[in-house]
Amino acid sequence: MGKEKLILGISASPRKDANTDILMKIALEEAGQADNIKTELLYLRDYKIEYCKGCFACCKEGAANMDRPCPIYKDDMGFLADKLLECSALFIGCPVYFGTVPGQLKAFMDRTEGLLRYSTSKYKYGLSNKIGAGLVVGGNRNGGEEMTLLALYHYYMIHNMIVIGTGPDRTPGCYLGACATTYPQSGQVSDAVLQDQLGIKSAKMAGRRLAEVLNMMKD
Amino acid sequence: MGKEKLILGISASPRKDANTDILMKIALEEAGQADNIKTELLYLRDYKIEYCKGCFACCKEGAANMDRPCPIYKDDMGFLADKLLECSALFIGCPVYFGTVPGQLKAFMDRTEGLLRYSTSKYKYGLSNKIGAGLVVGGNRNGGEEMTLLALYHYYMIHNMIVIGTGPDRTPGCYLGACATTYPQSGQVSDAVLQDQLGIKSAKMAGRRLAEVLNMMKD
Amino acid sequence: MGKEKLILGISASPRKDANTDILMKIALEEAGQADNIKTELLYLRDYKIEYCKGCFACCKEGAANMDRPCPIYKDDMGFLADKLLECSALFIGCPVYFGTVPGQLKAFMDRTEGLLRYSTSKYKYGLSNKIGAGLVVGGNRNGGEEMTLLALYHYYMIHNMIVIGTGPDRTPGCYLGACATTYPQSGQVSDAVLQDQLGIKSAKMAGRRLAEVLNMMKD
Amino acid sequence: MGKEKLILGISASPRKDANTDILMKIALEEAGQADNIKTELLYLRDYKIEYCKGCFACCKEGAANMDRPCPIYKDDMGFLADKLLECSALFIGCPVYFGTVPGQLKAFMDRTEGLLRYSTSKYKYGLSNKIGAGLVVGGNRNGGEEMTLLALYHYYMIHNMIVIGTGPDRTPGCYLGACATTYPQSGQVSDAVLQDQLGIKSAKMAGRRLAEVLNMMKD
Repeated sequence: MGKEKLILGISASPRKDANTDILMKIALEEAGQADNIKTELLYLRDYKIEYCKGCFACCKEGAANMDRPCPIYKDDMGFLADKLLECSALFIGCPVYFGTVPGQLKAFMDRTEGLLRYSTSKYKYGLSNKIGAGLVVGGNRNGGEEMTLLALYHYYMIHNMIVIGTGPDRTPGCYLGACATTYPQSGQVSDAVLQDQLGIKSAKMAGRRLAEVLNMMKD
Repeated sequence: MGKEKLILGISASPRKDANTDILMKIALEEAGQADNIKTELLYLRDYKIEYCKGCFACCKEGAANMDRPCPIYKDDMGFLADKLLECSALFIGCPVYFGTVPGQLKAFMDRTEGLLRYSTSKYKYGLSNKIGAGLVVGGNRNGGEEMTLLALYHYYMIHNMIVIGTGPDRTPGCYLGACATTYPQSGQVSDAVLQDQLGIKSAKMAGRRLAEVLNMMKD
Repeated sequence: MGKEKLILGISASPRKDANTDILMKIALEEAGQADNIKTELLYLRDYKIEYCKGCFACCKEGAANMDRPCPIYKDDMGFLADKLLECSALFIGCPVYFGTVPGQLKAFMDRTEGLLRYSTSKYKYGLSNKIGAGLVVGGNRNGGEEMTLLALYHYYMIHNMIVIGTGPDRTPGCYLGACATTYPQSGQVSDAVLQDQLGIKSAKMAGRRLAEVLNMMKD
Repeated sequence: MGKEKLILGISASPRKDANTDILMKIALEEAGQADNIKTELLYLRDYKIEYCKGCFACCKEGAANMDRPCPIYKDDMGFLADKLLECSALFIGCPVYFGTVPGQLKAFMDRTEGLLRYSTSKYKYGLSNKIGAGLVVGGNRNGGEEMTLLALYHYYMIHNMIVIGTGPDRTPGCYLGACATTYPQSGQVSDAVLQDQLGIKSAKMAGRRLAEVLNMMKD
């Protein structure tokens, strides 16, 4: 039996218990059925995250002895960065806002600068070689779901991660990743995705695929 | 009354009278309802188009006196290039193949090198300042429709064109352009898009928007 | 002589007087040389912008009588929205953060929900039919510049805007829009773009093109 | 010692011994330095490839007993498909044509339909779980390199492959994959990339990364 590996899910919807949360739970429950996989789900809205101000402090000498990746702000990024170090796979889920990731998620992404190759702290290479997957929920049928997934994957690749899609099944809905829509209901309906059978299937496939690829890697 | 302007539609499906053709006709019929607009629809499969071999002959002196943009091949690109010069707007429609435009369409796009800023012939700037719109049909619900539209728009921008989406209506299906899917039927069903009400709406909106923006421009 | 039209520049760098600000000034100065064009440059860092919380209040009846697009937050989005109504073209410039727009810019973009077709206020269709252009500065040579421009253009299209690139000149550096890099210097060098001749050319071209297309439109 | 794994390189430039070929050789030589890795390089221009005509014959019963994935055309796709089955990683390199992959490469990509989940032949799942990497050469500095890499990755994901970038080193030029430019020389200069130190570094990094990730996978 292999080492147990953690899939860290991050739900980046500002709305509690709504569509993105619902699908992330479904996807992670599916992933957790596989051998050697444990999962955890964080809600980005529960954390205080300042905007990165582009000061490069995380890349300078002063960061080397810090217990958090960003020397400037004492917000919740320290806690979140420790979680990122701990996981074997990162699975970000979010609603589509104006064709790409929402502002709060982008702020979080920006603040992981201190986990990059340019960092001087123990957080350097913090996400390197981990597996990345994505889940998105759009209000329109083709309203930015693909671009949002590609924005996540670009982010993962900058962190030297390994990127996967939805697996080998037929009609995945979206090959790039888990993809659901609240259409034909309004995005205001907070559980509209429960009517989106293809979206639910897609979420399960992404979760299963993530576990599968983790188990293809050497420990 | 303004000058009559031509919207040139190009359907780039290899399949006659199938989904892409059907929607292009619907979109162009809608566009043609507007004042001062005439439309024409070509089918790319009717033309012989060689692959560009990257020889830059169209950018060299020898091209200056040619009656076609590519000095090398005597295929149908001469005819097609003349059509491109004639139009005020270019409206390409295609099925999604492996997440972007099909091979034959890409071959056509590549062969318009002689209409670019680097050309030495009368075809130079052949598409400059014209309006560009796109229509795509995917076999999966979120299987590359956005990326295919963006590939078309990137192409239009390289030609110094002006790019538009689907207009001001609610629930356009896709803001980027006309977007339909053969799902939940198989792409093998050649008129599956007739069941896709959102796709049909999206096609009409793109056609209407194209006419509208043409009429916003000075003659 | 036509009506004077306003190009509203928004610099979305957190760093004052650094690379993005420098290039936005160069681009807008170039645009301002054209007939009938005036320009204004705002710095996003000067404004307080809350994250959109996806409550749809701007789409509900209560928003109809508001003097700002978002009924929830009394931050600076009211002022910024009034500026957006006033302009004929929107020209957003930003650094590339993790392959796309920075968090603060994304937060601003998200908060323009109340200018969309779904709004009930006077801000509805606030950006419709306006011209959109983009300028980006990357720390790596090919580190997300294209994706960042496409994220801006997707946003513009959702707002029913008209999108342009860099114009007809040879070797634009990037056809999609103004594009510069701080490479081979570090992004820490706050005026590194002054060494990027192609980036400066690209910024000027985008500014000039924006003015040119504005003057192609009927008043 | 592990099983030897094959990286199959495909150079999709129409120009023999020019920039793309040069960089693909450099990248594969670097990859071949790693343990357990062998490499092979094919030149797409050497093969005859018909356009896919969207007939779905590869997904129908008749394909089950074929010795090639496409029952329709007896061109070189049979040979190429056998090579695809044989490899553990696929590494496609191409010039950027109008912001994405060249027509001939797209035609090849389209013709791998018979290796997908929808196939009925022994080629079904032919690329599933293999690693995918990309290398691109642009004529402009930011002229579609990113979009071309993303088009390759979208293709890989449709085939259920695993996608990687350029590894953990500093200043990779492009995080998404190997990325070079013939600028400031003209693309007409067939060895212009030899002046692009960042492009060469990027090619080596992608090759090295591909070998590294192959060796992270269980046999």
